[in-house]
Amino acid sequence: MHTYTVAILGVTGAVGQEMLRVLEERNFPIHKLVALASDRSAGGTVRFRGRDWPIAAVCDSAFEGVDIVLGAAENDIALRWAPSIRAAGAVFIDNSSAFRMDPAVPLVVPECNGGDVKNHQGIIANPNCTTAISLTAVQPLRSLGEIRNMVASSYQAVSGAGAAGPRELQAQMAAYIRGEELPRQVFPCPILCNLIPQIGGEQEDGYTSEEMKLHYEGRKILHLPELNVSCTCVRVPVMRSHSVSLRITFDRPVTVEDARQAIAQGQGCRLLDDLPNGIYPTPLQASDQDLVLVGRIRRDLTDPCSINLWCCGDQLRKGAATNAVQIAELLIG
Amino acid sequence: MHTYTVAILGVTGAVGQEMLRVLEERNFPIHKLVALASDRSAGGTVRFRGRDWPIAAVCDSAFEGVDIVLGAAENDIALRWAPSIRAAGAVFIDNSSAFRMDPAVPLVVPECNGGDVKNHQGIIANPNCTTAISLTAVQPLRSLGEIRNMVASSYQAVSGAGAAGPRELQAQMAAYIRGEELPRQVFPCPILCNLIPQIGGEQEDGYTSEEMKLHYEGRKILHLPELNVSCTCVRVPVMRSHSVSLRITFDRPVTVEDARQAIAQGQGCRLLDDLPNGIYPTPLQASDQDLVLVGRIRRDLTDPCSINLWCCGDQLRKGAATNAVQIAELLIG
Repeated sequence: MHTYTVAILGVTGAVGQEMLRVLEERNFPIHKLVALASDRSAGGTVRFRGRDWPIAAVCDSAFEGVDIVLGAAENDIALRWAPSIRAAGAVFIDNSSAFRMDPAVPLVVPECNGGDVKNHQGIIANPNCTTAISLTAVQPLRSLGEIRNMVASSYQAVSGAGAAGPRELQAQMAAYIRGEELPRQVFPCPILCNLIPQIGGEQEDGYTSEEMKLHYEGRKILHLPELNVSCTCVRVPVMRSHSVSLRITFDRPVTVEDARQAIAQGQGCRLLDDLPNGIYPTPLQASDQDLVLVGRIRRDLTDPCSINLWCCGDQLRKGAATNAVQIAELLIG
Repeated sequence: MHTYTVAILGVTGAVGQEMLRVLEERNFPIHKLVALASDRSAGGTVRFRGRDWPIAAVCDSAFEGVDIVLGAAENDIALRWAPSIRAAGAVFIDNSSAFRMDPAVPLVVPECNGGDVKNHQGIIANPNCTTAISLTAVQPLRSLGEIRNMVASSYQAVSGAGAAGPRELQAQMAAYIRGEELPRQVFPCPILCNLIPQIGGEQEDGYTSEEMKLHYEGRKILHLPELNVSCTCVRVPVMRSHSVSLRITFDRPVTVEDARQAIAQGQGCRLLDDLPNGIYPTPLQASDQDLVLVGRIRRDLTDPCSINLWCCGDQLRKGAATNAVQIAELLIG
């Protein structure tokens, strides 16, 4: 069996750490791990498959001999090192948003458009976390009809702001219990016992950059250039799983029974839909595992061509690390 | 100036306590307060306008001489005592859901249908908290066109489960910080760092009772018998203000500018809508005051006849006590 040299760019961050766990769990065929981080983190080690691997500072020569680079860094880092990765002949599976809308770069949720991986020219983009989670729930429903549009309201975990997000929520809890002022560095206002209806800056028409991602990335991933998605993204005091209340409109009337059956048979998702017995997805249940949990499937009371559902997925897993490793699996498969 | 004898049925609960505060703040003309509660709470006192008033156990004769009864109790209590209230000649402004859909009972959000108060036959119903908050935001927008339907996703505070809700969230925070198991009595699973997409039992078509309230109560309050509302109600770890992500569809194309202007001039709500400067409603801002905060107003990307908005209101205030006292003000006005 062929084995690979895999680099993680940004190995010390929340997504980088999760990538290590996912690669190990899924037994990805690696013979050498190249753990890359900023100068600040270089010199330390990361644990992978029972041994410590050195963390190196990223530099132009860091990618020599690397087959696959999993990017777990911000846009500026991805843009800075993409030329070196390409020059070294490695494939860059990038989790930042830098290349997602580049026509030369496949943007892939394996359950939706895994076949697009083969069109890569050295870079494959991993979608936004809410996009990956939502579309994994949506994909099985495409058997019911063509999707015309979606209306989404998200309930997004603090992990979406990086490892500092959960730290801030924990620190605010501790301060609240001690009766002290809530410490604040990451979020513009307290997130403990609060909701923040802004993720990202304003992009267009009063929508934030985060809200427009499901619209534009959804079009590209689902190969539906006419798809429209109106999204409201809200940060909630939840640690690491995103939830989405989703209304999906088809080109024809659809039934809840068909939708339930499609989800039950769908890849990458799990039907949890038995309201009388209190069975429905919650972000706690969705955490630390790879499936997108789907439930509360209902006919829309305003339109026979629409259904409503509620889905939850681990932001660091299917929203980031797992999806990236799945792409790597397709690449070598 | 005429003054009144006002009774509060369920004075020791979260809504009853808030009614005392709101009556005092709004200087409601009261000469005698009749504080009623269960046998368990009788014998104690409540503080109102600088003095202590005795809490009496509710009984058939408790309503003699009372002009207005503010109901802050559950359905069974409201149903049990309504005949005695009526026999005593008092008007019952009830916060339970027992009488809301009764055709003989006006269901009132003063900003929407204050005129309906005059049709009462001894009982006036106060709507569900999410209904009152949402419709206060929606009412000014009726100047833009006739509302055809709405799609709503709610983010509902734990105070909606009564005083025990906030106590449970606080206790779970304390346990989390101490590394102990989370105590659970009120909610079916942990609410700390979690979301629960079920409020109320299943009512019809997979919708919960809470979700159908905005549909049915909205029709009655707005005098729009054809209105359809598809709602997803979610409990969130927030103390006392509900938030709603709302998509409103009109019978004609509408503009964001007109919607903003309508909200800015609307009664009972306040426009907070300046995303580039981080100005939008949050549940913390909405707490302990009477206005519904409205922002994030955007054109819908799927339909020119729809707009999206985000609103927050105090569940115990505009969602319950304030709305009831406003109804009492109309009654005596």
